[in-house]
Amino acid sequence: MLYGYNGKILRVDLSQGVKTVDEPDEAFYRRYIGGRGFISYFLLKELAAGEDALGPKNRLIFAAGPVTGAPIAGSGRNSVGAKSPLTNGYGDAEVGGYWGAEFKHAGYDAIIIEGKSESPVYLWIEDGKVEIKDAKHLWSKTTGECQKLIQEELGDKGVRIAQIGVAGENQVRYSCIVNDLSHAAGRTGMGAVMGAKNLKAIAVRGHQKAVLSDAKAVNSLARWIRDNFKLDKFSAGLSKNGTAGALMGLNRAGGLPTSNFRQGMFDGADKISGEALKSSILVGRRGCYACPIRCKPEVAVGEPYNVDPIYGGPEYETLASLGSNCGIDNLEAIAKGNELCSAYGLDTISTGNSIAFAMECFEQGILTEKDTGGLKLNFGNAQAMVQLVEMIAKREGIGEVLAEGVARAAEVFGRGAENFAMHVKGQELPMHEPRFKQGMGLGYAISPTGADHCHNIHDSFYTRRPFSSRAAQLETLGIFEPLPCQDLSPAKVRMLVYGSQWQHLLNCLVFCYFVQLSPPQIADLIRGITGWDTSLWELMKVGERCVAMTRAFNIREGVTKDNDYLPRRFFVPFTSGPLNGVSIDKGELARAIDTYYAMVGWDKNGVPTLAKLQELGIEWVARV
Amino acid sequence: MLYGYNGKILRVDLSQGVKTVDEPDEAFYRRYIGGRGFISYFLLKELAAGEDALGPKNRLIFAAGPVTGAPIAGSGRNSVGAKSPLTNGYGDAEVGGYWGAEFKHAGYDAIIIEGKSESPVYLWIEDGKVEIKDAKHLWSKTTGECQKLIQEELGDKGVRIAQIGVAGENQVRYSCIVNDLSHAAGRTGMGAVMGAKNLKAIAVRGHQKAVLSDAKAVNSLARWIRDNFKLDKFSAGLSKNGTAGALMGLNRAGGLPTSNFRQGMFDGADKISGEALKSSILVGRRGCYACPIRCKPEVAVGEPYNVDPIYGGPEYETLASLGSNCGIDNLEAIAKGNELCSAYGLDTISTGNSIAFAMECFEQGILTEKDTGGLKLNFGNAQAMVQLVEMIAKREGIGEVLAEGVARAAEVFGRGAENFAMHVKGQELPMHEPRFKQGMGLGYAISPTGADHCHNIHDSFYTRRPFSSRAAQLETLGIFEPLPCQDLSPAKVRMLVYGSQWQHLLNCLVFCYFVQLSPPQIADLIRGITGWDTSLWELMKVGERCVAMTRAFNIREGVTKDNDYLPRRFFVPFTSGPLNGVSIDKGELARAIDTYYAMVGWDKNGVPTLAKLQELGIEWVARV
Repeated sequence: MLYGYNGKILRVDLSQGVKTVDEPDEAFYRRYIGGRGFISYFLLKELAAGEDALGPKNRLIFAAGPVTGAPIAGSGRNSVGAKSPLTNGYGDAEVGGYWGAEFKHAGYDAIIIEGKSESPVYLWIEDGKVEIKDAKHLWSKTTGECQKLIQEELGDKGVRIAQIGVAGENQVRYSCIVNDLSHAAGRTGMGAVMGAKNLKAIAVRGHQKAVLSDAKAVNSLARWIRDNFKLDKFSAGLSKNGTAGALMGLNRAGGLPTSNFRQGMFDGADKISGEALKSSILVGRRGCYACPIRCKPEVAVGEPYNVDPIYGGPEYETLASLGSNCGIDNLEAIAKGNELCSAYGLDTISTGNSIAFAMECFEQGILTEKDTGGLKLNFGNAQAMVQLVEMIAKREGIGEVLAEGVARAAEVFGRGAENFAMHVKGQELPMHEPRFKQGMGLGYAISPTGADHCHNIHDSFYTRRPFSSRAAQLETLGIFEPLPCQDLSPAKVRMLVYGSQWQHLLNCLVFCYFVQLSPPQIADLIRGITGWDTSLWELMKVGERCVAMTRAFNIREGVTKDNDYLPRRFFVPFTSGPLNGVSIDKGELARAIDTYYAMVGWDKNGVPTLAKLQELGIEWVARV
Repeated sequence: MLYGYNGKILRVDLSQGVKTVDEPDEAFYRRYIGGRGFISYFLLKELAAGEDALGPKNRLIFAAGPVTGAPIAGSGRNSVGAKSPLTNGYGDAEVGGYWGAEFKHAGYDAIIIEGKSESPVYLWIEDGKVEIKDAKHLWSKTTGECQKLIQEELGDKGVRIAQIGVAGENQVRYSCIVNDLSHAAGRTGMGAVMGAKNLKAIAVRGHQKAVLSDAKAVNSLARWIRDNFKLDKFSAGLSKNGTAGALMGLNRAGGLPTSNFRQGMFDGADKISGEALKSSILVGRRGCYACPIRCKPEVAVGEPYNVDPIYGGPEYETLASLGSNCGIDNLEAIAKGNELCSAYGLDTISTGNSIAFAMECFEQGILTEKDTGGLKLNFGNAQAMVQLVEMIAKREGIGEVLAEGVARAAEVFGRGAENFAMHVKGQELPMHEPRFKQGMGLGYAISPTGADHCHNIHDSFYTRRPFSSRAAQLETLGIFEPLPCQDLSPAKVRMLVYGSQWQHLLNCLVFCYFVQLSPPQIADLIRGITGWDTSLWELMKVGERCVAMTRAFNIREGVTKDNDYLPRRFFVPFTSGPLNGVSIDKGELARAIDTYYAMVGWDKNGVPTLAKLQELGIEWVARV
């Protein structure tokens, strides 16, 4: 009996219209667990080297994990992965909401989609049954319209839908997959891969509840979360203000990305903060499956922006990327930009970066009104920002180029535009300033998906004892020493090594990293769900294995040591604010990268050694 | 509040007669835990490179751990370490009984002894008070006499005594430290280090019970052991026949060291088996502090050998080393040899090997009756064996040379004697045939203490699923694949990497590896004892850290890659029995050693990389 899983992986070949089901053995499940573990496994095994990310051979993989759909906070998630059209390397994104749990309850642990449909289709999965359905009438619809139409067509408002919007249809390289209208598998361009397959949506409905080995143990942890999340500063803050609550603190510290990362403080920060949001446009809070924390905002805005609350509202990353990083302090405009990103299926982080990049190019004279179709793309121009979101999704005007992401756009623009393209490996930077959080910066440089903040460390949690409760998770892994944010010593590298293995594990499990279970509690949870006599040590090895697999995938695709870098801007000191004079030392970063390689068992070129792959039980990776 | 420890480490300088107490901070305890962790820490920090193991500067360290003295099976142990006079590298030995718990209850977590007393002394530690007492009258006494005299002198039969015998006084290089008369910290010559310091004994008495963070959790695990050990094949077997129960199975498999490892089957095996012991000379069973398993035999023998049951009785290692490996099937003679080893303080493994070595040299004509003082040292000569034990302890006749261990004796004998010296790094082989258990053989080659079976893997536990319960401990570390005993593939190397980290952890904890707690249960136990929010992952890192520290110590002392080998005999196939034709492939062993280095983060020369030391939080090791 396999607890915690359905034991079935669905395969859909859209070129052939064929659906099949794999039933892997328990060893597969225990070794790769789920989420990023599954995705990196199948991409390595099944995708030939060098395939076009937007070609029919790319695999698009929706993956759940053992926690998905279990009756406990943090279980509403799934990962979506493929070779990334943004980085040409390993791509995936994790997402919350309700779709993941519903999908798991519908009888599968993952879907592997290959091929390309001749015309637009959507998948309909209900309690194990799978249909490939026509979606011509859904094409070019907003996500809101599309969800409504599918739910009507299927006659069930309980159907959960993961879908692309116009941006994915247009293969915008950072288009996302949206589920439940307000949750986005945002990063690495998974929407474009789905669009390239002519797959508009996956609708799911399932009534098969999670089969747990020890329901009592799981319930007891679920109860612990309910009883304790408000006692914990971090969770309580999330529950009160969502991630937006972090904005003012980052601004005060000088770490709020502002005007395309030129500054770390924003004059209008108080106008776009979590507090400002709460006291103005917030109309409700929403959450994910089984979670009491409810960290997601729901906003409504009237004229002139008219924001529909069905799309939720902007969280920290969006407030900073469409706000401060574009020099914009107009909260209603940011909410509109966020709504459009949800309606069109755009990753708000990359979208905001692309707009900020265009603004800096405009201010530097690299772009002119001729290029922008008359748009005055100065920092702070809220209306232009909203218009650009639309143009990017629809690939109109300058949006055609910006839809390619800042790395490719910089090549098109030339004239030094690459100096203003804030990306690593082609993926735009999240809203965590690497000069402020230097461990995060190191993580950006090394992460398999390029600039990524979800499999990384947030240095600021670790600057003094006791660590903030969120960060204290690393204490159970043996990290006790407080370290300054501006530090790239070997001790910081170690923190990243352990931290990113831990975060990779959470992705494999697929468990929300905002929920406060400590590593030992996670081990208890997985024992309770699966019945395996497993340990945190075995589970951390799953995370480590996954780090090695994603790296190996990148190496195979030509994404190598040369792609482990940071944009030059971060080697230049801030000239004002609390971080005046602070930058990343280029030599120190290079040394930290070398140290990271050595610590995780990669050779000097950043290639996992055969012995490390053998130690992790994945020597087959060396052959592919 | 530091739970699970006394927070005090006693230092005694015997040259100066000075006693001091260190009170390390919690970070020290959490990072190094105890046992081998403490010993390797202090040896690296305090002993200068290249010091004589038998000189006054060597540190002799008695170390407890968090489990020592707690009310749970497996907690009666302590480790004793120093630079080894046998290997000139890292030395330590673990021992059970009652002394360790009593020592911990007396108020200290470890004693570090340096210097050399001018005349024989013993230490008397009672509830924190420490006295250096005259021991001139105890010198040259047997352990039995000495214990009686000290207990009378102190007027307390509850005093527990760890002591050397005549062998330690004479600095026999494999002399041991005996506590409670029948428990030996046997290996690596710790008795000689103690003897070189003129320290006869350490008597302890303590009334301070273990201070536990969560006594309920600890008690519940203690109860679990009591309720379950008889349901477990391995523990039940130990309880019934002790380790001696393994002898017949090993003989049937062709893996019973016989006649100095020339054969793997012994004709007289059934006469020296656990079953034979039980049905003849066994008069009782004894155990260790708080342990219900009671795996130790107590034997009595009349004329002509007259064996006193106060010294316990022979266990598997002794039955094979003084028995089959000397070609001897006379159980009473073996029991006598065992009694003498306890009374004189000799390691039975090295003693048996030294005698078998001498026998083979005799049969080969390298030694003659002239050398042996008329002793006919043929294999199977039981009387000669008993006599040689005595001669070695007293350094009489040929015993003077054999007291140096087989490696040094082979140099003295010359004429190819080194071909018959079964040792690694100078330490004689335990009774696990490396051609049979090849992972064990690899472990012998790599272990910091030379040939050692306690920080190693027993391949035979892992040859089929389900693993035998004892071995199933590795399942919780993610090892599931059965592997044949005769295998040195990378998968086997991985098993050794994980297994030896696990065993190093147990030594640090100081917890008996016969008690059936699984790794996750061990993590629960340590959480319950210490109150730390620790995890198995953090604890396994303690084991890994300790592996790196002992290696670093060896490298510093000149014990390097060149010393990672096996005796040539094991590259030659058996010529009969179930393992006819089986040997270790020399090239395969070399590859396995290289793979091991790479897996654990050592460079090609077997030196831990700076990055690995940094990752383990012990970059200071690189400086010493």
